[in-house]
Formats: sequence, structure tokens, C-alpha cells
Amino acid sequence: MEKIAENRCFGGRQLRYQHRSAVLDCDMTFSVYLPPQAAQGKVPVLYWLSGLTCTDENFVTKAGAQRYAAEHGIAVVAPDTSPRGGDVPDDPQGAWDFGLGAGFYVNATEDPWAKHYHMYDYVVSELPSLVADACPVDASRTAISGHSMGGHGAFTIALKNPGRFRSVSAFSPICSPLACPWGEKALGNYLGDDRDAWAAHDSCALMRTAEEKLPALVDQGDADNFLQEQLKPQLLAQAASSAGYPLELRMQPGYDHSYFFIASFIGDHIAFHAAHL
Amino acid sequence: MEKIAENRCFGGRQLRYQHRSAVLDCDMTFSVYLPPQAAQGKVPVLYWLSGLTCTDENFVTKAGAQRYAAEHGIAVVAPDTSPRGGDVPDDPQGAWDFGLGAGFYVNATEDPWAKHYHMYDYVVSELPSLVADACPVDASRTAISGHSMGGHGAFTIALKNPGRFRSVSAFSPICSPLACPWGEKALGNYLGDDRDAWAAHDSCALMRTAEEKLPALVDQGDADNFLQEQLKPQLLAQAASSAGYPLELRMQPGYDHSYFFIASFIGDHIAFHAAHL
Repeated sequence: MEKIAENRCFGGRQLRYQHRSAVLDCDMTFSVYLPPQAAQGKVPVLYWLSGLTCTDENFVTKAGAQRYAAEHGIAVVAPDTSPRGGDVPDDPQGAWDFGLGAGFYVNATEDPWAKHYHMYDYVVSELPSLVADACPVDASRTAISGHSMGGHGAFTIALKNPGRFRSVSAFSPICSPLACPWGEKALGNYLGDDRDAWAAHDSCALMRTAEEKLPALVDQGDADNFLQEQLKPQLLAQAASSAGYPLELRMQPGYDHSYFFIASFIGDHIAFHAAHL
Repeated sequence: MEKIAENRCFGGRQLRYQHRSAVLDCDMTFSVYLPPQAAQGKVPVLYWLSGLTCTDENFVTKAGAQRYAAEHGIAVVAPDTSPRGGDVPDDPQGAWDFGLGAGFYVNATEDPWAKHYHMYDYVVSELPSLVADACPVDASRTAISGHSMGGHGAFTIALKNPGRFRSVSAFSPICSPLACPWGEKALGNYLGDDRDAWAAHDSCALMRTAEEKLPALVDQGDADNFLQEQLKPQLLAQAASSAGYPLELRMQPGYDHSYFFIASFIGDHIAFHAAHL
């Protein structure tokens, strides 16, 4: 693994690494912000999963999270959103909602995707191991968050790995891939026609049977173009209600799906995670 | 003039406008952040001038200034850095330090640049008039700041227009285009061989004879790759010292030329301007 960038930021260090991924069978990059407190010892860590079309850089350059991470002494890890590279297949029509930039944080079982598209294993297993080797983080104090497709990733990964995270949050998450066009397309291609396999990556389905109940926060803008057709936070609120899951869903008036929305509330999310880390 | 984007951000509005520029003879875009306070009446305004290669978007998406602008109730205007469009000439070799993205905030007198490259008049006259028409800003309370080439622009424009600004600041400014390769190339091409004409756009030369003395703040990273050859803040400090100009120059250890540096200290700069607005 090679460090390919380092920039001082809010008294800490914004780092970027490149490495060969065994589970994705390609070269990958990811970013880590280490707060000033990391110079004195291990710090808790927040994983951030980005949305469709993003790389590891969108969150790092646009969210303004470093200020809050420095205040609270939390490291922030931002992976890419899919495998990358010359032999990694993409959507045949080059669509932006599937293939490159759209790994959906699952392990594909269908060809041609099954060779590289294992973002679930990458985020759950390979990446934390690389981070633990390179950075002073305390893996016993881990939280997870994300945006849109990455909000889906954050909730499904938290729900599927009890004992692993202290808290979970999301901005504008895809709440049920079983119930929206983005999910139908992606999971149908990656996992095939068996919708039971999709349910294992559906936050609403997972929440209904969750034994561990984590502190959970969701922010959703009510001017988000994708709200009605793709995101459907009411389904997550219903699942949380029926399961007694402690989800706080905040509808934010006038906000859209952009990083201007994330920047406005990322401070709240980092403070929320800090309270549980 | 047409509003081409609007995003809610920190309770205010991030706006983007497109318009035909009379002084640049081309179509231009610029961005304005209006804080929540602008819904109740006119607010003071900070002009931000960006550096080489930037458009109006770099600062808007990367600096995280909206949080502080919302806290202090200040509008922030970010113009582009050069004229744009099909018939606007660029560096013959396509270099990134001259031509498109590198207007240097002067009025070119030499062909082929003289037809479009009038960024001084654009920032000093045309843009404030457009902003005043479209946005609730109080032009009597105006400050100016910028980065690198835009720090040069902020200081030269403030020094050349006494009575116009309440305060001036910069990140990593080009302090003396008379004394660095970027300045030699740009002003030589835009203004010709007469170095007296360059001195009218040299912060150090202007500061030595300034009658109005504005509160002035400069942050400079000591790990900035351009520090020794291009930026030379010691020349500005010497000019300020000899002129009795109230410049605070802060060398920031470990910081480079990037927006990670700007993001780390833009809160200080907006608080500095707010104290004088």
C-alpha cells in the first residue's frame, strides 16, 4: 500500500492511499482523515460510504467534515464506491446508476460482475484491516455513515454486523433497494433474480429482524429530487417503528441531494457519533 | 442574467448566475452565497477571488465558507478567474498559469488579450453592479479576499480603490508579480513590456504609497510548493513595515497551497472581516 497524498487540514492530516485489493482484484484508492489527537494515540473511527458516481474524493473535498472530526478527535475513512480499472466491467450503456461508481456495497454473484464487484467484503473486511495497519485507529470504537447509495451501505453493513459499530447514520439513504428502480437494477444485475438475496441487503428488511439496536440518525432533504421514487425514508421509519429500532429521521426543509446539504449537517452527524464513540 | 443553480446550505442559499459580460465580451458565471439573515434585509458582502485554474465553483464546493458566512450573516460572491468561451484566446501552449483561468485581475492592453481580458473592470465595476441588482447586499459594507492569484487580486483591488472596502485578506497570495515568474509571464503578456504598468498591479508597490490603511490579514502555509519562487510573502511584509500598513502575516506550519489549507482557516478570515463589516 502506498500513500499517494497528504495535506495538513485543521491541525490533522488528510491522507490518500493506493493499494492492490485482493477481494476486488484491482487497484483501489481510499482516503483517511486523521485528527490532531491521532498524534498522541489511537482515535475512534468513522467510515463514510459515498453515493452513486462518487470516488473517495467527493466527501473529502466537499463535506467539510475535517473541522468536526478534528474537534471530536475522530478519524474518517472514505473508500471508493466500486472496483475500478481497465478490466472492471461497467454498465453496458454507460449509465451512471450501475457499474463503475455504483457498487451498492454487495458481493456480486452474477457474471460479469462477480469477478470484481465485492464491495461488501471490501468495506467490511479488507479495508478495516488496511486502515488498522496504516493508521492509529481504535477499531473497537467504530461508527458508520454514508450518503444515498452509501446510506444504504452504512445501514445494511451496520445491521448485518452486530457488535461491530457503536452508531449508524445516513444522509438521504436508499432505504429499500427492493422497492426502488436503482435497487431493482443494481441488485438484479449483481445478485440475480432471487429477491430473497436482495432482502439480505435491504435496510428495511434487515431492521425488522435486528437483534442489536444501534443509535441511528437519518437526515433527508424534502427538496431532494430522488425522494419519492428512489429513497423512500418512510419505509425505513415504518420498519424502525415496527421493530422498536431507535431511529431518528429528520426531514430538512428546502434541502436537496447535494453536498451542500451534507455540509450543512455533517457536524451534527459527527457530534452524534462522537457521543457514542 | 439567469439564475442557473440554487441549493439550500446552512439555512441560506448557494446561488449561481450566468450572464453576458459587457466588459469581458463573453458569457460568464459567478456564485453567491446568501446567509439566512439575507431573508430579513441587506447583509454585508465578501468578494472572494480564486487562484490559477479555478472557476467560481472551487471555493464554493471546497472551502466550507458557508458555515461561517451563515454564522456572521455575510454574503460571499465568487467570480470566475478569466473570461471564457469559444473566441477567448488561451495560452498558445495551453499552460495552466496564463490565459483561461488566469486573468490576474488586470485589464489587458496587448493583443490578442485586450479584447476580452478585463478582469479588473469586471470585478471592480460590472460584477458588483450585477450583485447589487440581484441580491440583498449592502455595498457600503464590503470586504475582499482571495487565494494565490486571487490574493494578488484582492490586495491590488483593495489598494487601488480607497474607500471601497472595510478589510482585505488573502491565503498564499502572489505578493509581487514584478518579482516572480507567474507575474512576469502574465503581466508581460497582458500589459506589455512597460514594468511601470505592472507596478500599478503589484501589491508591494501599491502598499508603499497607500493612503488608506485597511485591516489586512494574510495566511501562508510554510509547506507551500510555490512559496519561495512565486509567492514571496516577505516582500509584502517588508512593504507593510516600511509603509506602516497594518498587515498581519501568519505563517502556518505544515500547510500547503490546497483548499485543505483554505478550509482550515477560512473561518478565521470570515470572522476577521465580520469584525470590520
